[in-house]
Amino acid sequence: MSHSDTNPSGQRYGAGIWHFATYVDRYATDGYGEDRSILDAIRLAGKVRDLDVVDLNWPYFGGEFSNDQVKAALDDEGLEVIGITPEIYTRVFAKGAFTNPDPGVREAAHELITNAADVVRYFGADYVKLWPGQDGWDYPFQVDYGTLWKNSLDGVGRLASENPDVKFVIEYKPREPRVHMSFDSVARTLLGIERIGLPNVGILLDFGHALFGGESPSDSAQLAIDHGRLFGMDVNDNLRGWDDDMVAGTVHPIELFEFFYTLKKNGWEGVWQLDQFPFREDSVEAADSAIDFLKAVQRGLDVLDIDALVAAQGRHDAVGALKLVQKALFSSY
Amino acid sequence: MSHSDTNPSGQRYGAGIWHFATYVDRYATDGYGEDRSILDAIRLAGKVRDLDVVDLNWPYFGGEFSNDQVKAALDDEGLEVIGITPEIYTRVFAKGAFTNPDPGVREAAHELITNAADVVRYFGADYVKLWPGQDGWDYPFQVDYGTLWKNSLDGVGRLASENPDVKFVIEYKPREPRVHMSFDSVARTLLGIERIGLPNVGILLDFGHALFGGESPSDSAQLAIDHGRLFGMDVNDNLRGWDDDMVAGTVHPIELFEFFYTLKKNGWEGVWQLDQFPFREDSVEAADSAIDFLKAVQRGLDVLDIDALVAAQGRHDAVGALKLVQKALFSSY
Amino acid sequence: MSHSDTNPSGQRYGAGIWHFATYVDRYATDGYGEDRSILDAIRLAGKVRDLDVVDLNWPYFGGEFSNDQVKAALDDEGLEVIGITPEIYTRVFAKGAFTNPDPGVREAAHELITNAADVVRYFGADYVKLWPGQDGWDYPFQVDYGTLWKNSLDGVGRLASENPDVKFVIEYKPREPRVHMSFDSVARTLLGIERIGLPNVGILLDFGHALFGGESPSDSAQLAIDHGRLFGMDVNDNLRGWDDDMVAGTVHPIELFEFFYTLKKNGWEGVWQLDQFPFREDSVEAADSAIDFLKAVQRGLDVLDIDALVAAQGRHDAVGALKLVQKALFSSY
Amino acid sequence: MSHSDTNPSGQRYGAGIWHFATYVDRYATDGYGEDRSILDAIRLAGKVRDLDVVDLNWPYFGGEFSNDQVKAALDDEGLEVIGITPEIYTRVFAKGAFTNPDPGVREAAHELITNAADVVRYFGADYVKLWPGQDGWDYPFQVDYGTLWKNSLDGVGRLASENPDVKFVIEYKPREPRVHMSFDSVARTLLGIERIGLPNVGILLDFGHALFGGESPSDSAQLAIDHGRLFGMDVNDNLRGWDDDMVAGTVHPIELFEFFYTLKKNGWEGVWQLDQFPFREDSVEAADSAIDFLKAVQRGLDVLDIDALVAAQGRHDAVGALKLVQKALFSSY
Repeated sequence: MSHSDTNPSGQRYGAGIWHFATYVDRYATDGYGEDRSILDAIRLAGKVRDLDVVDLNWPYFGGEFSNDQVKAALDDEGLEVIGITPEIYTRVFAKGAFTNPDPGVREAAHELITNAADVVRYFGADYVKLWPGQDGWDYPFQVDYGTLWKNSLDGVGRLASENPDVKFVIEYKPREPRVHMSFDSVARTLLGIERIGLPNVGILLDFGHALFGGESPSDSAQLAIDHGRLFGMDVNDNLRGWDDDMVAGTVHPIELFEFFYTLKKNGWEGVWQLDQFPFREDSVEAADSAIDFLKAVQRGLDVLDIDALVAAQGRHDAVGALKLVQKALFSSY
Repeated sequence: MSHSDTNPSGQRYGAGIWHFATYVDRYATDGYGEDRSILDAIRLAGKVRDLDVVDLNWPYFGGEFSNDQVKAALDDEGLEVIGITPEIYTRVFAKGAFTNPDPGVREAAHELITNAADVVRYFGADYVKLWPGQDGWDYPFQVDYGTLWKNSLDGVGRLASENPDVKFVIEYKPREPRVHMSFDSVARTLLGIERIGLPNVGILLDFGHALFGGESPSDSAQLAIDHGRLFGMDVNDNLRGWDDDMVAGTVHPIELFEFFYTLKKNGWEGVWQLDQFPFREDSVEAADSAIDFLKAVQRGLDVLDIDALVAAQGRHDAVGALKLVQKALFSSY
Repeated sequence: MSHSDTNPSGQRYGAGIWHFATYVDRYATDGYGEDRSILDAIRLAGKVRDLDVVDLNWPYFGGEFSNDQVKAALDDEGLEVIGITPEIYTRVFAKGAFTNPDPGVREAAHELITNAADVVRYFGADYVKLWPGQDGWDYPFQVDYGTLWKNSLDGVGRLASENPDVKFVIEYKPREPRVHMSFDSVARTLLGIERIGLPNVGILLDFGHALFGGESPSDSAQLAIDHGRLFGMDVNDNLRGWDDDMVAGTVHPIELFEFFYTLKKNGWEGVWQLDQFPFREDSVEAADSAIDFLKAVQRGLDVLDIDALVAAQGRHDAVGALKLVQKALFSSY
Repeated sequence: MSHSDTNPSGQRYGAGIWHFATYVDRYATDGYGEDRSILDAIRLAGKVRDLDVVDLNWPYFGGEFSNDQVKAALDDEGLEVIGITPEIYTRVFAKGAFTNPDPGVREAAHELITNAADVVRYFGADYVKLWPGQDGWDYPFQVDYGTLWKNSLDGVGRLASENPDVKFVIEYKPREPRVHMSFDSVARTLLGIERIGLPNVGILLDFGHALFGGESPSDSAQLAIDHGRLFGMDVNDNLRGWDDDMVAGTVHPIELFEFFYTLKKNGWEGVWQLDQFPFREDSVEAADSAIDFLKAVQRGLDVLDIDALVAAQGRHDAVGALKLVQKALFSSY
């Protein structure tokens, strides 16, 4: 049974499969819960009321599983695959994947991602997601910045040119685990993509990463769309000072509403994905709760007086614009 | 006609009178609008639908006005005075009021505030508000921190002990205009107040200053209440990285809702004040819009399932608690 | 007498003339000192031991002065002009210069800057500096981001194409006075400049703005250099959370050292400028002190073991690289 | 052989033993290196040129080891124990140790720490270190703040009163792993300690946590000293936006110098400890490098013109004060 059957609006929802894993950090080294394999995680994902697609870490975690096994588990839950996220941020890549000082490690990253492209083909998924979280630096004077950036672009460009049938999406973030990530912002990533100059490289825009980077996520989305590079997106929430990966809408409901307004206005039609890390929460409840809010957002967009909003924005009239937004979003209005 | 007559809930609303002034900053040195006197500002405040009280800067800005003149203008608009804010942050106090290296300037601050206490008595207001924005430091090694803090406490303590009939409220803020303000947080201010040890010194809690300082404003309110020191409060909004003094509820509606929930739960009954700086907005619209949202908050609190919320909080169940909150606050639920 | 005669290293130093003005902010509305005209400021700039060039706000502040009068004052002090900064951030531009919702105001900005280009020609200066501090937004939903960005690029592009003999440098900053500035980062600005596609538009890189924006200033410089767009720079310091415009080297001496190392390594030879706002300090002392530190930086660069540093960076060896840096810098005074 | 024999200045140096462990985070779940037991870590600590004491996590990591075994390993390396850090932040404590919603878990924390006090007695160490990193909250509305804070103080107070012969030091931090930690700042912690009212509870001041919290670490130290509660300290560095635990002195050498100046001026004589997490660095080199810089700081303090500095601070003369500091520090290597 396909989940999307149950969602009359036709909007499809997705999540990173890691949403349903358990986590470790540098303090709770024994983890925030029992280990789960990717099959366990898929089973949990299947319990979310309205989930249609998932993004899969690869290699699969928690055991040795074949693509067929994973596919069978997904089929059981009525889930499809939107993207594959190769794990280019584990121990061997601690000093970088594309930008590792050791050319052998850079080559290992290339091979891993090349194989991930095959997994994309296997599932008929949309893209390989590149999240080069270990590519960057920690200290002043640690690296030659020019070389680092060149290696970033060369690495992505080589993959894109060797796999013209596959899309590669870069998920930028300001930092973590490195103190500074090379692909740190929407503009830096677009600048790099323009330099690479290939049609199959785009951006996976994470709402929370934009907030964390001091961006207005709607502005980031508009910029990526205007460059023809918004290939995917996901949402969550945070306090703007870190990538907290909290449940979407729990801190910044108005900016989240604006984000989806921006997508709608541009006719951007894709999956609304979650990238949440429910360290201490029930992962199914956390996903259901986020999607419930996304549906409230959809209903809010349906009643928003867009003509009046556009007119207010034409005057840069914040108070007028927000009055319309509050009327659409808040009940007591 | 008293404004409070028009507000059936009985909740009284207030604003700093500077909400209705115009502003300068270091770039727009010609100001964001024509100069206004305090009488002009009072006339604008009178246009806000539901304003009951104001906090007045003193000495009065924009001309030489007597207390009687100001009182007459307030009477015309049906406004009362909740507090007086002596301007201890102008040129003469650029290196501090209580902590100025020049004892003569410290004495001048003392005299100015002493006179402000008389203005409080004249209006039958609630308190002298102390906002020592120039007391602090900019550079490492600039000051002797022990002396600075001692002077802060001695200065406030002397005023409180010389004027036992008047309340003094300290409005803390992390920074601006100094790079670091002495009264920088709720805990530091309470620590100082406890050391002063007088009953007539308390806190004026600014929602936005708490956000800016990395606090959860509700936690700050609870702490001040538990120490018996929450003497006043005001609201606004910001992006957590600066004291933006934006319209309340435009960025953090959920935490604002929680803030008022915390006040209600503790039976804290006082004026709900605004401390907004509408640099580029119509100041009456900005106040009306904020109060409209505060009323939505009140209605939301009326329908919030508090028993269920308390139960969820007893389990530290964030998803469960926020589901109740969303139901009360958002329309599409 | 030319100041550069007194500096044997040949390095030229500069400052924004506003370094020698006095300031107002939203609290000390009576200013942090007596008003000064641009002529007063030039006289003070002349007292700095090693200043060679200045960047001039235009229209000239503090009175009506002709170019000839200003030139005479500069000649008296042995100072030349490096750039002209048109004041596109005063009251009339409160809602933006290039992006103002009123096309008449956009035209006014265009005219003002066009006239500033003539002042550049008059002085034989290097560039018009564009600092569009009011171009941006404060609230979610306030503006149409696509239109705003298009207007930014159209405005700069029109100037550059109408004045091919003049360079235009954009000084980006994350925010202030707007809550979000359109030209907010090095990458966003380069992306816009590439889109404009004209040779006479570049970046004026402010060390402190880069820090404030979460950038590593050396990485920003390298990126701008690699795009052929680093047309100018200035330094100062801050706590990374705001544009404090403190004296250079007082908080981040190591990253400042790295910044000049990056310029040297790329053979970038231009003026080392200061953009400091000594609100409460003696402005001549603040400039002398910064330049003294810049000279220590030069001496440090002279003794830095660059071959060993390059080798350490080739391994991403932070500890090894910083050991060399500490040896060079912490013995340079 | 005791390491302190090799350090003629008599200053003793220490480190958390975790400095010599390997780490995991939520991305590199396979760790940044091979697992190490506490015995492995002790062996590495022994290779640091000037280390005298260590702070030990407890229960011991990497295997089952008796106190005697650990003591033997320490003796072999000439290391003593300054404190014991009970691991009250692992899985079972994911929702808090002192403030867990489950009273059974609160009791488990109490027992674990009680046993840690015995380990302190066994080694003749100085204190039990409490770092309640899981005590706090992530979401608005998640907890009852008053109850949470009361449980924090009750939990620490009970331990201190049951073990009057043992010192308990609280290491505050703004956040991580929780989005907000209960003991978040120096002032909050002092406020709590004053309320507990027992002589054997104090603060372990982490330089980086103070920076991260927007404090000036020297001001924090002065405040804790003035309250008689500075029982210990450690240093590291970061970019002020996160607890990066970088090598001390690599980003903020001037504020680190000020920190030690403040300790010296107050006659505070204790161990200078490191709390660094060299994720990608050689841990011995990272410790050696930090201690080398601490020795440069000591030499700088020896030549600092303290009388002139005190005079400059008496005028709040930042430029004058920093000139003296630069002269002392930038010639100390």
